[in-house]
Amino acid sequence: MLTIPIEVRFRDLDAIGHVNNAVYLTYLEQARLAYWAELTGRVDLRSIDIILARVEIDYRSPVSLGESLDVAVRCVSLRRSSCTLALILTERKSGRLVAEAQNVVVYYDYAAGRSLPIPETLRQRIRELDPEVAETSAPGGVS
Amino acid sequence: MLTIPIEVRFRDLDAIGHVNNAVYLTYLEQARLAYWAELTGRVDLRSIDIILARVEIDYRSPVSLGESLDVAVRCVSLRRSSCTLALILTERKSGRLVAEAQNVVVYYDYAAGRSLPIPETLRQRIRELDPEVAETSAPGGVS
Amino acid sequence: MLTIPIEVRFRDLDAIGHVNNAVYLTYLEQARLAYWAELTGRVDLRSIDIILARVEIDYRSPVSLGESLDVAVRCVSLRRSSCTLALILTERKSGRLVAEAQNVVVYYDYAAGRSLPIPETLRQRIRELDPEVAETSAPGGVS
Amino acid sequence: MLTIPIEVRFRDLDAIGHVNNAVYLTYLEQARLAYWAELTGRVDLRSIDIILARVEIDYRSPVSLGESLDVAVRCVSLRRSSCTLALILTERKSGRLVAEAQNVVVYYDYAAGRSLPIPETLRQRIRELDPEVAETSAPGGVS
Repeated sequence: MLTIPIEVRFRDLDAIGHVNNAVYLTYLEQARLAYWAELTGRVDLRSIDIILARVEIDYRSPVSLGESLDVAVRCVSLRRSSCTLALILTERKSGRLVAEAQNVVVYYDYAAGRSLPIPETLRQRIRELDPEVAETSAPGGVS
Repeated sequence: MLTIPIEVRFRDLDAIGHVNNAVYLTYLEQARLAYWAELTGRVDLRSIDIILARVEIDYRSPVSLGESLDVAVRCVSLRRSSCTLALILTERKSGRLVAEAQNVVVYYDYAAGRSLPIPETLRQRIRELDPEVAETSAPGGVS
Repeated sequence: MLTIPIEVRFRDLDAIGHVNNAVYLTYLEQARLAYWAELTGRVDLRSIDIILARVEIDYRSPVSLGESLDVAVRCVSLRRSSCTLALILTERKSGRLVAEAQNVVVYYDYAAGRSLPIPETLRQRIRELDPEVAETSAPGGVS
Repeated sequence: MLTIPIEVRFRDLDAIGHVNNAVYLTYLEQARLAYWAELTGRVDLRSIDIILARVEIDYRSPVSLGESLDVAVRCVSLRRSSCTLALILTERKSGRLVAEAQNVVVYYDYAAGRSLPIPETLRQRIRELDPEVAETSAPGGVS
């Protein structure tokens, strides 16, 4: 598991006065990229080799200006060329649950436009970060 | 069902060169608000009386600069104080499927901070727009 | 001169309830790219050969949800490797002045990381679109 | 003078691979709000009593993923109901100049929709933070 801090910007709010629902996906993206950087040791743009296939998110409580968030991300299941990340957003000071999400991420060759098997070195790093990850070899769909 | 057009902006793309995953939720938001305006006849900020509780989205194909989208939105299930919208994003010229989403929307009193039963006048308008909507009176959860 | 339409999105508003100041630059960007596409006939990402060097913008009146904008863009001065675009944003129905801006745009080789002289074919197209453009050969600075 | 840190997000980049020009205004906004919070001791949404009238910004060097910024903001001139802030963006590690901006900010009553004289208590706080601020009582325009 990895936890990353998020500073809420004024621009993240919408006209209702809370962080806009779409911005949560930007927070999730920051957490995914940090998790991937932790796995691979690489942070540059050219090294991005994952693509987002699916998001589920439950909004649990609104976020106001002046609040700060933490996003905890861990890999809960690992397949041949994709994995599922579970992400939990909490407000830093109060610990209040803000949102829960699952992201399906595919190991991807952007040049070729197709998925690739996740290399064993990455799989091993995932097991180290998240020892309880479930591994399946399910083919088909986003396998 | 209601279909709304979306013009892709340069700013909607990210460093990978495609529309960013979070921006899809902004497109869904435009469609939800248009659907709600169609139901209620009101479009001003003060009349917003829905809150987003949950999003599921499957990204089916990337969107490039110069493409335009259509978002079809229909209400697929209607509960006491919430409903589920199914949204389908397609590229306008090619008809290519871009993403599929489900949104759970709660009828909400922002001043009081709590959900409200969806009034019968709105329920009737939803049935007119989406005659095949499933109606349940399931309590609990986001009912 | 070229005029392009902008549809205001809910996400363009901020917590004050009006279109956020930064979003105006996204509207200007749409107008710049449309102007450049009109000049060059090209719209794909790879063909972007301009970089923004400077913006001046005066915010004249706030924009609310439900309003639509037009952005008029014309080239007011043309130098060796840069030009100045004047942009005027108005609300479509009322014609109300919303903002006035000037953008300095540099003809740029992204691969080499340096400015280039604007080719004569482009200069000629600019003169056709904006016959009153002032031409100077001022060197130095953003020339 | 006040200096605030900015963490660059992946979403801040555009399809060219650098922080998008419009996002700089979001960074400026964070710095303006922090400066105003420092003056007034208030940070909640309801207490926002300034409106942005004008921005000038010169983009000096592009910002890449993985870089972090500092924004230094100081008040350079103080008028009856408005002031000019000078903002300098630098990359944190290298100290590289990224952008320079001036913002004209008006003390504003949002409920009444008009500017107000800046109260003497705020003027005094500005003088304490920025002893070299120029004070003029110029009327007219954005005075």
